[in-house]
Amino acid sequence: MDTAAEGRRRENWREDVAGRANVADTPELEAYYDALEALSMGPLWTVANKIEPWHPVPDSVPVIWRWKDVKPAISRAPELVTPEQAGRRVIMLVNPGRRQHAAAVGLLYTGVQIMDPGECASAHRHMASALRFIMEGSGAFTIVDGERLSLNARDFVLTPNGTWHEHGVDASGTRCIWQDGLDIPLMNALDANFYEVHPNLNQTPHLPPEGSVALYGAGLLQPTEARANWRKPYSPLLKYSWEATEEALTRAARASDGSPYDGIIMDYVNPLTGGPVMPTIGASAQMLRPGERTKAHRHTGSFVYQVAKGSGYSVIEGVRYDWTERDIFVIPSWAAHEHANASDTDPAFLFCFHDLPVMRSLGIFREAALDEPHQTITRTA
Amino acid sequence: MDTAAEGRRRENWREDVAGRANVADTPELEAYYDALEALSMGPLWTVANKIEPWHPVPDSVPVIWRWKDVKPAISRAPELVTPEQAGRRVIMLVNPGRRQHAAAVGLLYTGVQIMDPGECASAHRHMASALRFIMEGSGAFTIVDGERLSLNARDFVLTPNGTWHEHGVDASGTRCIWQDGLDIPLMNALDANFYEVHPNLNQTPHLPPEGSVALYGAGLLQPTEARANWRKPYSPLLKYSWEATEEALTRAARASDGSPYDGIIMDYVNPLTGGPVMPTIGASAQMLRPGERTKAHRHTGSFVYQVAKGSGYSVIEGVRYDWTERDIFVIPSWAAHEHANASDTDPAFLFCFHDLPVMRSLGIFREAALDEPHQTITRTA
Amino acid sequence: MDTAAEGRRRENWREDVAGRANVADTPELEAYYDALEALSMGPLWTVANKIEPWHPVPDSVPVIWRWKDVKPAISRAPELVTPEQAGRRVIMLVNPGRRQHAAAVGLLYTGVQIMDPGECASAHRHMASALRFIMEGSGAFTIVDGERLSLNARDFVLTPNGTWHEHGVDASGTRCIWQDGLDIPLMNALDANFYEVHPNLNQTPHLPPEGSVALYGAGLLQPTEARANWRKPYSPLLKYSWEATEEALTRAARASDGSPYDGIIMDYVNPLTGGPVMPTIGASAQMLRPGERTKAHRHTGSFVYQVAKGSGYSVIEGVRYDWTERDIFVIPSWAAHEHANASDTDPAFLFCFHDLPVMRSLGIFREAALDEPHQTITRTA
Amino acid sequence: MDTAAEGRRRENWREDVAGRANVADTPELEAYYDALEALSMGPLWTVANKIEPWHPVPDSVPVIWRWKDVKPAISRAPELVTPEQAGRRVIMLVNPGRRQHAAAVGLLYTGVQIMDPGECASAHRHMASALRFIMEGSGAFTIVDGERLSLNARDFVLTPNGTWHEHGVDASGTRCIWQDGLDIPLMNALDANFYEVHPNLNQTPHLPPEGSVALYGAGLLQPTEARANWRKPYSPLLKYSWEATEEALTRAARASDGSPYDGIIMDYVNPLTGGPVMPTIGASAQMLRPGERTKAHRHTGSFVYQVAKGSGYSVIEGVRYDWTERDIFVIPSWAAHEHANASDTDPAFLFCFHDLPVMRSLGIFREAALDEPHQTITRTA
Repeated sequence: MDTAAEGRRRENWREDVAGRANVADTPELEAYYDALEALSMGPLWTVANKIEPWHPVPDSVPVIWRWKDVKPAISRAPELVTPEQAGRRVIMLVNPGRRQHAAAVGLLYTGVQIMDPGECASAHRHMASALRFIMEGSGAFTIVDGERLSLNARDFVLTPNGTWHEHGVDASGTRCIWQDGLDIPLMNALDANFYEVHPNLNQTPHLPPEGSVALYGAGLLQPTEARANWRKPYSPLLKYSWEATEEALTRAARASDGSPYDGIIMDYVNPLTGGPVMPTIGASAQMLRPGERTKAHRHTGSFVYQVAKGSGYSVIEGVRYDWTERDIFVIPSWAAHEHANASDTDPAFLFCFHDLPVMRSLGIFREAALDEPHQTITRTA
Repeated sequence: MDTAAEGRRRENWREDVAGRANVADTPELEAYYDALEALSMGPLWTVANKIEPWHPVPDSVPVIWRWKDVKPAISRAPELVTPEQAGRRVIMLVNPGRRQHAAAVGLLYTGVQIMDPGECASAHRHMASALRFIMEGSGAFTIVDGERLSLNARDFVLTPNGTWHEHGVDASGTRCIWQDGLDIPLMNALDANFYEVHPNLNQTPHLPPEGSVALYGAGLLQPTEARANWRKPYSPLLKYSWEATEEALTRAARASDGSPYDGIIMDYVNPLTGGPVMPTIGASAQMLRPGERTKAHRHTGSFVYQVAKGSGYSVIEGVRYDWTERDIFVIPSWAAHEHANASDTDPAFLFCFHDLPVMRSLGIFREAALDEPHQTITRTA
Repeated sequence: MDTAAEGRRRENWREDVAGRANVADTPELEAYYDALEALSMGPLWTVANKIEPWHPVPDSVPVIWRWKDVKPAISRAPELVTPEQAGRRVIMLVNPGRRQHAAAVGLLYTGVQIMDPGECASAHRHMASALRFIMEGSGAFTIVDGERLSLNARDFVLTPNGTWHEHGVDASGTRCIWQDGLDIPLMNALDANFYEVHPNLNQTPHLPPEGSVALYGAGLLQPTEARANWRKPYSPLLKYSWEATEEALTRAARASDGSPYDGIIMDYVNPLTGGPVMPTIGASAQMLRPGERTKAHRHTGSFVYQVAKGSGYSVIEGVRYDWTERDIFVIPSWAAHEHANASDTDPAFLFCFHDLPVMRSLGIFREAALDEPHQTITRTA
Repeated sequence: MDTAAEGRRRENWREDVAGRANVADTPELEAYYDALEALSMGPLWTVANKIEPWHPVPDSVPVIWRWKDVKPAISRAPELVTPEQAGRRVIMLVNPGRRQHAAAVGLLYTGVQIMDPGECASAHRHMASALRFIMEGSGAFTIVDGERLSLNARDFVLTPNGTWHEHGVDASGTRCIWQDGLDIPLMNALDANFYEVHPNLNQTPHLPPEGSVALYGAGLLQPTEARANWRKPYSPLLKYSWEATEEALTRAARASDGSPYDGIIMDYVNPLTGGPVMPTIGASAQMLRPGERTKAHRHTGSFVYQVAKGSGYSVIEGVRYDWTERDIFVIPSWAAHEHANASDTDPAFLFCFHDLPVMRSLGIFREAALDEPHQTITRTA
């Protein structure tokens, strides 16, 4: 059985380096530690080296969830639970190192949701920011603060913090599966999560369907009145179509070599600010050109990827993760990583969302190239 | 002959209103004023009511320059001067009240430039911000900081402050005419104008042609690296095509009633900030739906319009100005104005540029509806 | 012994409310959950109500550490460890609910440091932002990026993220004790912590002593050059004296009734931006006037208080915490709280630091008054 | 008599430089120009070199108004007009090159106001931003949006755009003289001036006297509530005392060598933003140390100086202007200038206000050192 004293002793993180804590346990000190503990106190020096590491040491580990595994798993859920029972019928993708936080990586949550034709979940809102990236099926829709939006494969859709939202699939549609992304673990870490069920359980759309796409979707021109009056901290545009995204990447490749670490990479932006789509979650799309293999780097921030098109692999901390369409994988903060397109003829496309807006708002983004352009691959996952 | 004293006397702006200056001239005071003048001083009270008016009293007057007059006028220029001689072969549109400032309205300059196939003007840069809106012809191009851009009818093109730029028409093209817009009078009013001729007289393009359109033209997705590193105060996107503009307005009309004063109106934005395209000049496009007549309002800011498509009229301070394609007209600050589409079947489109970014940066934008929705039309211009 | 299945079962957070997850465990579902778990997946619905609570449910609890307990505890440390061994000779104040994170409340760390005359710790820097509030003793100093600052009772001192810093006490001084505040738990939660030991172990000051106080300490006038060129995300002023703080509060009370919830409360600001002193930690000082008892409210954000002067009590979630000079107490996010000055003749002063800059940057500050002005006191801590 | 044609001919600004306009007048062209003029058009090339100069060519000239001249001039005004008649009893200081704009330099206005004990002018507000710097006398006060402020020698006081304000001298005071500074010419150049007389002609103060000084005057601490809620574009602090200003400069000199061009120079800041006190006018105070002579530079922006203390001289475009206490002088945009303290024992202090906030908001600040550290003095003014 664990005692507090044993717990503490296991926590003496000594380092024999000038400027680091290096205090040996003695009976006298242990008695002192016990006395402190009784007062809700503790010696900094036994844990200083742990809580102030030389560089980030995430609990999160790299993980890949392959579609060949995810699809059968999620496909059983409709047999077992209804959306009403489940609230939302979602299978979470859980990082083995972050099980307590229901996190896929860092303070980001992701899951895969499945809905059948005619199903609809009830409306709610929360402090957490949410997005989805559509995987397959037809007839899915979402209603966000009274605006109905249809969802097609690879569309990127926002349900920002504080907006009422609900999802469903038209009776004329097919079974739909999409990925959800939220910052639930961040909101909980910051003790700032709130949740409300819509007073009518479901919304009656009162705005033109796809209205935000009509108004803000042109990107380069924005409505004069709305532009002057929008005060919310997130994008007024709620859906970004895949077609335009792929075209944007393809055109950018004509004018730019992109990033040595990411190929052609572009951020989805709030068209009224040029900033991230939501204050706590950003999203990007990237294209690896045929045969492209990027260089390795590391940086702060946690990333969740979905393979939008093509096949290839990423090397994360020396381990090779092969991926193909609809696979989902994560890269923890400060993990060395690089990407490769397996095809010499077709581009590969990755969608990702991440917490870089948090890193940048708080001034803690840091980036470093590795000494060598590529990592040595130690194994294949 | 004018004497200083006579000049001053004509300037006693008395008002018989409590709180306003109301000092009668007397021989004693006139002697005092003469003494002050010799010391580069003067009484505030003789001019206070003039320099602190109840509301803006622009020197600018509303003017329309009709294409039927402008085209023949500009078309004579190529017979008379070369681009080399002229620097730029441009006919200025000069407000009768702003002749000294070479201004079309307020502190905005506009002119109409003409170039024949094979012609090219030399490269320069200046503190003034510049834009152009293409009127007719094919084969025109501009080179901005090493990027070559082709110019087609109704394209909106930037040559921001401090960028090297030059214009020409391909030998295979046709005679081209476009409208230039600049803030030259503003730069001069602020004593901040600078001008440089390119050391080589002409640029050798070193960037991909239309590169900024390829990189930034998607609007909703922006290149990750460039987005993080752009420090200039203007849009990195240098050309906004008309086709996308008309489509944006048409789609916005499906989701919005627009503005009661302007119909469907959208601002061209810097995609990296959502702000105006340049720090001192903004631009907008608006659509008047078939049969639409907007309500009257007034606001600070000076506006230069070009009719992009269709026919209609604007009522400015009670005077009706009928307009059709390529006509150019101006609305001075605080002038009451409203717009009407003359067609019951086709939309009309107006392009405009203005100094609203200055009004907003300096905190001096002010707007008021009129008591009545429409002005009484006192005459037709 | 715990099995994963048992662990999960304990985690079925059902709620019998429309719109909330409410799925009963069945053998079939449990088998499904086991299968998911093997794939690093899990059902959202068993934990949805837990991870998306109706309102924040912090692990942190209110705690008070009284000086009468803290002083003897910290005073033993010099007998037991040297600064060299300990890195820093600090006793952490650890929230019983946040022991794993070494947090005093939320994602904020605090501790009490002690140094004897002639002692000096080595220089380091880290991504975590740090501050201190001086409790007692004379002759303490800190060196921040080459600037030496002396520390006197109740001075508030910054060692912002990324600055080299070290602390010591002059040989001619007395034993010194101060409170440290850092966002170490936040940096770890965000996987963004870094640490470096100074290459020379100690800095040689190369800037004028107290130079930032001389340059930026006037507040209302700021050096023209520095103001135009400062790019760092934190205040260039590194020390805020108590004398000026107490005077500011006393003068503000002449012109303002202050806040119904906090009395006369003012924020320490970065004089170059008017914003918080560091991007992740803000600090405030407040005065409770003689006899003042504030109203109760709750809001997001975690707070660490030190009683700077006087005596009184705070009611936190119905529990009364009496406090006097140098006592330290914490208020978790969303906890109802109110403050009272125990004296009818003298003001009481509280210093506090908090994560409101994070709440505001991320758009997650939320505040609510209670229905009643005061809480019912259920017990005294 | 002038004809339009003659007017134009005088305006052919030819330059024999590649890239500049260089078109000789010919009878054919002159006929063309006449035809254009009749259509409110004109050739750009005859004026291009004038309106796009190589660098700013201000109409403003350097001027000094010496107290020995100003004091007798303003002192006669009370015998000749009452404040009621005059609105405000002010003698303008008018730049010989800017007489039409009632400007002292660039688009800045300045004047000297005089009031006798018991006098009070009526309340008004305007879009122009205003400030004053007190020269002599006791008992003066101003009321700004309901807050009464007493004015003492060298105090710097704001009456920002849109605030109701009025000035007076207590019956128990002495004759008071102060300098007014406004951006009236800027507001008129931008066609954005508005003026209103207070409905009651005078305000009844409803806020604590000197309340903004009590609340915001501490600089380094700002009231929490007000800080979060202030939305106006100017400083909430309305008075900056000279005593604190002189102390700030004196202390800064201990930690900084200041600017090679300006000595120890500091900006008055809005304590809620660290930015300029008003969106269109900034203010600075500078100290020239005993014997100090600064280096010469030039930059955009117009400046109005008042000598707060001491004696010295400035060299502006090669002309030496000796100055002593209360003298007022102006430096136009892009004029080369440098300053010298005439005393080897005492510091000299200059107050100035300027339009740098406009230069910076619009992105048109530019600065250059001269090739030589000092100008050759060609004459003494």
